[in-house]
Amino acid sequence: MDIRNIVIAGGTHGNEYTGVYLIKKLEQAGFQEKYPDLSIDFMLGNPKAYEQGVRFIDFDLNRSFLPQELEDLSMEGYEANRAKAINHHYGPQSANKTDFMIDVHTTTSNMGVTLIPNYDNPYNFQLLSYLKEEMDDVSIFYSSPESFTGEVENPFMFSIAPYGFVLEIGPTANGLVRHDLLEKAEQAIVKALEFVEAKKRSEDFSTASQVEYYDNIGPVYYPTDKDGAISAVVHKDLQDRDFQLLNEGDPIFAHFSGETICHEGVPAYPIFINEAAYYYKRVAFTMAQKKTKHF
Amino acid sequence: MDIRNIVIAGGTHGNEYTGVYLIKKLEQAGFQEKYPDLSIDFMLGNPKAYEQGVRFIDFDLNRSFLPQELEDLSMEGYEANRAKAINHHYGPQSANKTDFMIDVHTTTSNMGVTLIPNYDNPYNFQLLSYLKEEMDDVSIFYSSPESFTGEVENPFMFSIAPYGFVLEIGPTANGLVRHDLLEKAEQAIVKALEFVEAKKRSEDFSTASQVEYYDNIGPVYYPTDKDGAISAVVHKDLQDRDFQLLNEGDPIFAHFSGETICHEGVPAYPIFINEAAYYYKRVAFTMAQKKTKHF
Repeated sequence: MDIRNIVIAGGTHGNEYTGVYLIKKLEQAGFQEKYPDLSIDFMLGNPKAYEQGVRFIDFDLNRSFLPQELEDLSMEGYEANRAKAINHHYGPQSANKTDFMIDVHTTTSNMGVTLIPNYDNPYNFQLLSYLKEEMDDVSIFYSSPESFTGEVENPFMFSIAPYGFVLEIGPTANGLVRHDLLEKAEQAIVKALEFVEAKKRSEDFSTASQVEYYDNIGPVYYPTDKDGAISAVVHKDLQDRDFQLLNEGDPIFAHFSGETICHEGVPAYPIFINEAAYYYKRVAFTMAQKKTKHF
Repeated sequence: MDIRNIVIAGGTHGNEYTGVYLIKKLEQAGFQEKYPDLSIDFMLGNPKAYEQGVRFIDFDLNRSFLPQELEDLSMEGYEANRAKAINHHYGPQSANKTDFMIDVHTTTSNMGVTLIPNYDNPYNFQLLSYLKEEMDDVSIFYSSPESFTGEVENPFMFSIAPYGFVLEIGPTANGLVRHDLLEKAEQAIVKALEFVEAKKRSEDFSTASQVEYYDNIGPVYYPTDKDGAISAVVHKDLQDRDFQLLNEGDPIFAHFSGETICHEGVPAYPIFINEAAYYYKRVAFTMAQKKTKHF
């Protein structure tokens, strides 16, 4: 696969500092010079949100790349326009300007290193399988546009490149950088570029032909009161147990009334448990099922 | 000590949700009815910042209570005016409207339950000593106004009451609530009110006459580049080691250049290590010395 133009993005959400610091550090260290066969750009996704230390100004930049919205000039918000600027510079996918994108995010959930492919194709899953072999505490999560938004198109920034992934690292608070997670993020990028370069030379250094991943089912919402305010917290028995099977009857919420609310329905794997970014949508966690991808 | 009027505050910083959820939960549960001899008010400190999920709108509310600023009507910011409204309702200290205040905060640092007395008086230190005996993972931190701001007056909200403390709980990300920390915060409040009621009846249920605490020395700043931007991260060997002695030569920063920067000077105890709220002030952590208070 002849991948050449690569974008490594950080700060797509302005309060997720790890990616911002990582691209600053790599740029200052002359990281690109180590890859003479690749053209690597670093991009600060949402500079205004980073400056203000918030996830976004008007709307989530990483939900602003639906093709029809990229054509809609009537949208007034900062991110709606930033998305168009990014799409003009690095996209659209059909123009082949960007072959590969890594978008570095963090989560407040206990998700270790979670890799989310932009598209379901063999190259991406083989790459993520390689990272899973090479690094500790790696999970792969796939969310089809339909399961995520009910739309058939992809609203995420990395949709402008055919190959690549979101690197989601946690747990960490927003608005700060942990040295250990910064190192993990850098390691993931180095390993990913190792794979990209080997595939350019048509080398294979993995014999794996399948990988386990988590497939998005959908969100679970907080209980709310009559005014729509959240009226429970994620139960302490569920907190930090991302990627651990949740069975019928397991506690999921501690309601303000004192009641414990338990999981009903089929067993599944909760992720993004108690993610700060999803409170405003009243999402407590997301459920996924374990699957195997053959490539 | 005849304490009667009590204020329990949460959300003085709008992105510290634990206090906000705690006062909602206690209010809904009719918590005040359990204390017929006390008059307990719950207060959401900074409602506008909470609504927006940020620490503050214009300026830190918990640095807005300097007596001269409370008299300065020319100050235009939201918090400068909110502070005057709170001071009118519950203060000033000289009016004896509020005897006792607990202000519930959280930190992204690994500080467990840290208790910060509003004033250095025997009642406060005896109370905090009692909480330290009764609960796990409790530390006491005292910061004189001089060591904190160089001013002789106290800029903190809880200065409007002669007795009370800040309850600082961590580690937790901003913008979310952990069930385990919510329970710890509630436990601390129940224990504090146990002490208050016993002292009203002139009972003593502790024979302690001294307690160990950490006394503020002052902040340690991040290295910055020529533009004033932070150019290092807290070293992974220091991360999460709040209240553990830092000796000369111990790593404190990993600089973007690859250099490790070590502690110079006398050994001391670092706290508020990698606290998100202090990035904008370029503060990486605060140093303290261990002392003993006799009461």
